[in-house]
Amino acid sequence: MPKFMDVHHGMHGITPQALKDAHQADLDIQGEEDVDFQRAWADPDSGMAWCISEAPSAEAVKRIHDRAGHPATEVYPVPVEV
Amino acid sequence: MPKFMDVHHGMHGITPQALKDAHQADLDIQGEEDVDFQRAWADPDSGMAWCISEAPSAEAVKRIHDRAGHPATEVYPVPVEV
Repeated sequence: MPKFMDVHHGMHGITPQALKDAHQADLDIQGEEDVDFQRAWADPDSGMAWCISEAPSAEAVKRIHDRAGHPATEVYPVPVEV
Repeated sequence: MPKFMDVHHGMHGITPQALKDAHQADLDIQGEEDVDFQRAWADPDSGMAWCISEAPSAEAVKRIHDRAGHPATEVYPVPVEV
């Protein structure tokens, strides 16, 4: 399954609990699109956040994030990894 | 140890071997700054790449990447993670 890195902006002040809740909102519905969100990282000062997922397509990643209430600004395939 | 996400631009066409070599160049010198580069992902089409590290500071991350020959465009602390 292809892997994706998605990028969020504007998440200023995000707390550990808020990121956990946002991630859980993805997990709750991701199976409907065969998406598997694996990890997420956030910087409360810059408002940036990143998620790594496996998914059938970037569009599937976008749709789950949209429906969970936190649209991604960018979604990139990351076929190269170490 | 704080965790950081750094972002690279312009790595168009990067191959798995090239990312592995770039990562190894970081690993070879990271101990001099107490940096631990953990994972990296790249998108050959957009030329974007991301690395996750643990380090004493963003400046230490930047210095290792600079010396290894692949300067990071941005380095963000990521104190929030799931």
